[in-house]
Amino acid sequence: MMDFLRAYKNYDPAAKSYAEIFFLYPGPRAILCHRVAHVLYSAKFYFLARVVAEFSRWITGIEIHPGARLGRRLVIDHGLGLVIGETAEVGDDCILFHGVTLGGSKFDPVKRHPTVGNHVLIGTGAKVLGPLTIGDGAKIAANAVVVKDVPAGATVLGPLGVLKEQAPQEARS
Amino acid sequence: MMDFLRAYKNYDPAAKSYAEIFFLYPGPRAILCHRVAHVLYSAKFYFLARVVAEFSRWITGIEIHPGARLGRRLVIDHGLGLVIGETAEVGDDCILFHGVTLGGSKFDPVKRHPTVGNHVLIGTGAKVLGPLTIGDGAKIAANAVVVKDVPAGATVLGPLGVLKEQAPQEARS
Amino acid sequence: MMDFLRAYKNYDPAAKSYAEIFFLYPGPRAILCHRVAHVLYSAKFYFLARVVAEFSRWITGIEIHPGARLGRRLVIDHGLGLVIGETAEVGDDCILFHGVTLGGSKFDPVKRHPTVGNHVLIGTGAKVLGPLTIGDGAKIAANAVVVKDVPAGATVLGPLGVLKEQAPQEARS
Repeated sequence: MMDFLRAYKNYDPAAKSYAEIFFLYPGPRAILCHRVAHVLYSAKFYFLARVVAEFSRWITGIEIHPGARLGRRLVIDHGLGLVIGETAEVGDDCILFHGVTLGGSKFDPVKRHPTVGNHVLIGTGAKVLGPLTIGDGAKIAANAVVVKDVPAGATVLGPLGVLKEQAPQEARS
Repeated sequence: MMDFLRAYKNYDPAAKSYAEIFFLYPGPRAILCHRVAHVLYSAKFYFLARVVAEFSRWITGIEIHPGARLGRRLVIDHGLGLVIGETAEVGDDCILFHGVTLGGSKFDPVKRHPTVGNHVLIGTGAKVLGPLTIGDGAKIAANAVVVKDVPAGATVLGPLGVLKEQAPQEARS
Repeated sequence: MMDFLRAYKNYDPAAKSYAEIFFLYPGPRAILCHRVAHVLYSAKFYFLARVVAEFSRWITGIEIHPGARLGRRLVIDHGLGLVIGETAEVGDDCILFHGVTLGGSKFDPVKRHPTVGNHVLIGTGAKVLGPLTIGDGAKIAANAVVVKDVPAGATVLGPLGVLKEQAPQEARS
């Protein structure tokens, strides 16, 4: 447990105390709720599991399906709009930002969500869709859309904004 | 009504029962609230309509302006961060994901939001902006930004992430 | 105060009355909460400041760190999923949409978030990351990712969706 709080404290320079993290951060709260929901889900109490998950979503703005498997020391930063699907798996020591989706792209009932390795960082707004694999240590940039496997250690670049040319006539001459 | 729940059940392989959908899914709840808000809005009870919409937003994380017109059997999946503007229109049998915006791009008070046809799928994080038309059966990919008309049956691709080259020196040699 | 409400009224053609804006819009509520949180933060009541910010996040879906400095007549539209970091600064008369992030990209404890000038518009889903500067009057398009300084008056274009070719065989012939 302290292990888990320490992961947050090390990670976030804006965190002033453990109490702040424990009582006021939405990420740890969502993960604790998910641990409960996942136990219920594994025992096939699907409805009850979903009640817990839905309560957590209302409190935190983070939506994790009770069936998802999350590794240790996961840091969810800000978290609003994060969606993790039923058959998604996330390794240890990952960092997920708000607006990330680990979602499905086809309607295959068996395995339709991503498998994420250890030490992976996924930037805000990135969407990882389908039963693909993100290798250990990979980094995915903000707002990137990923629909293929990502090798270990790789960096996926997202859509950087480009300056509209101020004087297009110069470009022509 | 059953029609509406059936649309969800057929669509979502993670749904275990109708009870789960009815009581625990944010999408159906937001749409039911919107039906009430829209009736109030049409009767020019603007303030009251907005009270209902704001309550729904707080409960579901889905923001639908009371003035928007939504078709039948609409599926809103996950829904957090979805925004539908006042003059938007959505046809029948559409699927909208979380983080989608049907918004305005100019400040024209009359019609400033999109008109979406039937059987349209709009992926998570996509922004459809302005008084444009999305044709029947079109699909819009995750995180895509759409500011022009989309013909019926078309697919709009979004910004796929690209792998940063691991060894840029090889590219130069 | 009226100044502030007037900014909203002028901006939003869907707003029917001042009462609607004051009682029912999430943007003004989040900004009022932030004013309180920022006073507490400046007096080094970090825990209490964070309580106010977290309450505001739960009520509005807008997450503004108590340390952030916001200018006058700021309009936050819709707001769900908006994140503003601890060392971010925003000038006067700006408009920020839902899903915008003014975030950090490195773990520098001193200044790691953006400085935004006056009269800046940042479109929905745009992510502005790092201790960069956005010049006065700049406009940033929906879903754009910005990691470099933006000069005053500039427009940053985002990732527009592209139509998938309907008949690729024609392109080959």
